[in-house]
Amino acid sequence: MKEVENYLLNNKKLKIIQRRDMFNFSLDTVLVTHFAAITKRTNKIVDFGTNNAAIPLILSTLTDKPIIGVEIQKEAIELAQKNIINNNLEKQVSIIHDDINNFVLHFNEKVGLVICNPPFFKIQENSNVNENEYLKIARHEIKINLEQIIINAAKILDNKGKFVLIHRPDRLIEIITLMKKYRLEPKRLRLIYPKINSEANMILIEGSLQGNKGLIIEAPLIAHNEDGSYSDEVKMMFLGEE
Amino acid sequence: MKEVENYLLNNKKLKIIQRRDMFNFSLDTVLVTHFAAITKRTNKIVDFGTNNAAIPLILSTLTDKPIIGVEIQKEAIELAQKNIINNNLEKQVSIIHDDINNFVLHFNEKVGLVICNPPFFKIQENSNVNENEYLKIARHEIKINLEQIIINAAKILDNKGKFVLIHRPDRLIEIITLMKKYRLEPKRLRLIYPKINSEANMILIEGSLQGNKGLIIEAPLIAHNEDGSYSDEVKMMFLGEE
Repeated sequence: MKEVENYLLNNKKLKIIQRRDMFNFSLDTVLVTHFAAITKRTNKIVDFGTNNAAIPLILSTLTDKPIIGVEIQKEAIELAQKNIINNNLEKQVSIIHDDINNFVLHFNEKVGLVICNPPFFKIQENSNVNENEYLKIARHEIKINLEQIIINAAKILDNKGKFVLIHRPDRLIEIITLMKKYRLEPKRLRLIYPKINSEANMILIEGSLQGNKGLIIEAPLIAHNEDGSYSDEVKMMFLGEE
Repeated sequence: MKEVENYLLNNKKLKIIQRRDMFNFSLDTVLVTHFAAITKRTNKIVDFGTNNAAIPLILSTLTDKPIIGVEIQKEAIELAQKNIINNNLEKQVSIIHDDINNFVLHFNEKVGLVICNPPFFKIQENSNVNENEYLKIARHEIKINLEQIIINAAKILDNKGKFVLIHRPDRLIEIITLMKKYRLEPKRLRLIYPKINSEANMILIEGSLQGNKGLIIEAPLIAHNEDGSYSDEVKMMFLGEE
């Protein structure tokens, strides 16, 4: 299948190679990356299920902290490697070809931030007969499920380290229950509404390992204007740093 | 202390007697009442901590189902009784002077809806030295706490009966954890943002006893316009039925 190269953000500083038949970065990718709070204490960032490395690429515009992207799919790893090299990010970004469940067993560091744009659907749920194996793995919990993602994040986080996730509202109760189970205290929640009068279609949540109780629900993120165009906030995210 | 009579809503159909030194109905009261979904299956509604009966009064404009208001404070009960009589609602609304913990022990019915605008603060939290005993009880978990409210709601609900609550975002995780513990599955969540660019300051949540999993996060409720005036949605609620 043909690889297509495009600019990642509108400032045209980064290029991304993608394949039409595989996961392609989209609004989710940009939203979860911008939701991550990177502070002086963030020593290192791990992206679970990095695919073609879209999250590390966008992160590289926001921070100079080291980033590790972990991905199980061989074809995605090939794209990710190319994308890191093409953007001269080899010093900042490492791509690791591994199952996340296995990666954490051998990773003997603790990090300040784990970020994840996970498969949103349970196996069999919302399955689309036209989906190929690449898309099935990116969208469905075939190789890893929500509980495994949360357990694994907790395993490699510093005390008070942050886990940042984008997901669907219908999984929020399960996410909160699992985060509490693995001592990731939910600290920030942001709801994404496609339009101002629509139900939320995505959620952004941050948990802190062994964090104190106390949730803040941030201002609503309205993705689109009434005419369907991106809202100013989203446009700014797609613009990138000038 | 002097009792003051005012119109409850702007359509001037209902009057409410309140005391300046006690709980006075406000935006919370109106929001939680309008959030309640009353269907054909709703046989009866119970309001936990009804105080001066503001919620039953507003509910009476939305439904003709029977309503029971339970209140522990003697002085609040006196106001509630007057308010029901003054608005000729004796046939629809019953006011019961009891501790909610005790009320559920003797209440041998199952109802379709329990509604509650509870004390928002834990004991000692945000305590204001100027608060008198009436206000302390209305605002702090002195006579009842969140877990007791949720247990008691679950005890008197029909299978699939609804529990509707307004509370503060910093208690959301605890609310969800307790609702799950007592088999009240969270079904609807709505965030209230004072303004479009502000953090949420209140949450509305509905649980269904033994309900199926699957949360919907409704459109954001923006309380005020940029100039501080009420938003159109809130204005409509305060207007009441014409």
